Amino acid sequence: MTRILVSEVGPRDGLQSVDQVMPTEAKKRWIAAEAAAGVTEIEVGSFVPAKLLPQLADTAEIVAFAKTIPGLTVVALVPNARGAEGAAAAGADSISIPFSMSETHSIRNVRKDHPAMLAEIRACADIAKASGMHFAVGLSTAFGCTIEGHVSEDQVVRLAAAALAAGAQEFSLSDTTGYADPAQVRRLTRKVRAEVGDDKLTTLHLHNTRGLGLANVVAGLEEGITTFDASLCGLGGCPFAPGASGNIVTEDLVLMLEAMGCDTGIDLDKLLKVREILAEALPGEPLYGFTADAGPPINLRERNAA
Amino acid sequence: MTRILVSEVGPRDGLQSVDQVMPTEAKKRWIAAEAAAGVTEIEVGSFVPAKLLPQLADTAEIVAFAKTIPGLTVVALVPNARGAEGAAAAGADSISIPFSMSETHSIRNVRKDHPAMLAEIRACADIAKASGMHFAVGLSTAFGCTIEGHVSEDQVVRLAAAALAAGAQEFSLSDTTGYADPAQVRRLTRKVRAEVGDDKLTTLHLHNTRGLGLANVVAGLEEGITTFDASLCGLGGCPFAPGASGNIVTEDLVLMLEAMGCDTGIDLDKLLKVREILAEALPGEPLYGFTADAGPPINLRERNAA
Repeated sequence: MTRILVSEVGPRDGLQSVDQVMPTEAKKRWIAAEAAAGVTEIEVGSFVPAKLLPQLADTAEIVAFAKTIPGLTVVALVPNARGAEGAAAAGADSISIPFSMSETHSIRNVRKDHPAMLAEIRACADIAKASGMHFAVGLSTAFGCTIEGHVSEDQVVRLAAAALAAGAQEFSLSDTTGYADPAQVRRLTRKVRAEVGDDKLTTLHLHNTRGLGLANVVAGLEEGITTFDASLCGLGGCPFAPGASGNIVTEDLVLMLEAMGCDTGIDLDKLLKVREILAEALPGEPLYGFTADAGPPINLRERNAA
Repeated sequence: MTRILVSEVGPRDGLQSVDQVMPTEAKKRWIAAEAAAGVTEIEVGSFVPAKLLPQLADTAEIVAFAKTIPGLTVVALVPNARGAEGAAAAGADSISIPFSMSETHSIRNVRKDHPAMLAEIRACADIAKASGMHFAVGLSTAFGCTIEGHVSEDQVVRLAAAALAAGAQEFSLSDTTGYADPAQVRRLTRKVRAEVGDDKLTTLHLHNTRGLGLANVVAGLEEGITTFDASLCGLGGCPFAPGASGNIVTEDLVLMLEAMGCDTGIDLDKLLKVREILAEALPGEPLYGFTADAGPPINLRERNAA
């Protein structure tokens, strides 16, 4: 049985796209309930100025709470060295910095070109090393950009190598825009791994904007990817249009992996119940997911025994 | 470039699950518009008693109309020999009979056990042969049953062999219940092909009830499957719950295949416009599809040139 790590990113990637501010107490219940369902890694927040993302202003408190849960790896997103210092002070296990492969997107989003981002990555790497945090770089817009359109695969490989030299311990390929297709996932995973090493690219961060999220997971699995980011209820909606979800849905991902005979360590029934916390704490917010509507197959537990 | 046949089943599988009766004139516009977008095979209706499915009572007229469209393969579903006679009289190119791998489901659905269904298949094969129609058997509930739960893969293989002996020219594996996962798709495709021959199993009929539809397509593609059924707007809703779609969405399937570098011969922009016919003719009916909400990637045409 292949062990697959499902990394929950809803409390960060989901909530940052939701206008409502989820109460700190509800975030804690959400994180604790997912951990109790068997989730072992959660990106709990982001160290960005509260005036930019008031939804995540309580990240330090959430990190401290999450650190009290035995066996949980507590991840925080950081946009820069200042954020990395905040994460270190709060006691995060791991930090992740998004590095946009589209320079236009990077400049518009964080006002930094590629050389400036590489300097930031170097500074984050130093802070992570000094404080014993794991340090990952998310290669965002790796599969295409809504501004630039096509993003050259050679450019992704080159920038990954530069980030490795700047101190990145690990990478994820991020389909920020929902542009990835399964053939591209296979191709780009191979190319980046050939440059940085198989052990340094183990994670895919996929969106379901055009419905291809789980199809892309299949391609990733076949390339040996062992960690997939996902968001409970596909939380975060869509940057484009209502009805199109953002992140792939944790519940649907777990159903697929367990049905395929992978071991996620997650109890799907317990996971589905965690949706109630979100429904209560974010009234009116659209919650996505097919498995929640249809229910798991009645033979889910026995199917791989046959 | 791999040529993939996207077979539209909305006018049959979609409409039979919709309570509203689509006007005959709208069905004709729908079929003509899809053909104009490059779709070359459409299952246009079902030869069942009008009192059972009033939505499809005009199937003979629809077949006759569809036959006037150059280059279009006109498929009709038939539940039995009587239906096959109707299809032959109407001039269909091809008929397909569903053969439920779960005997409980077969008995509840069409009041026939497996031996009775095999007799029906034999009779249909004779009618198809006499009238020059292509004859396919859809191995339904092949991936699991909402009544029986698990359906033995050995049983599917055995029943496919029996149907071949009874005169089936071709098979599709049908995930009637939305139970399939990518590992199972690969396994069962291999097993059935080993029994009936690769050239006799070229089609998958997948549902998206639990969000795994396109992930299952990826598995099918890797096994050499070259035909996928799909329904425009994912029409047909869900037998379980609102929000969970039925058939995989033709538009999303075409996006994925074209992005992967497969050749469907279908113009995605034209296909997306056909949705307007359904929106107008089926007021209030939920129309699914991620690509329609988010729009195709801006670099769709150039992405495989890079």
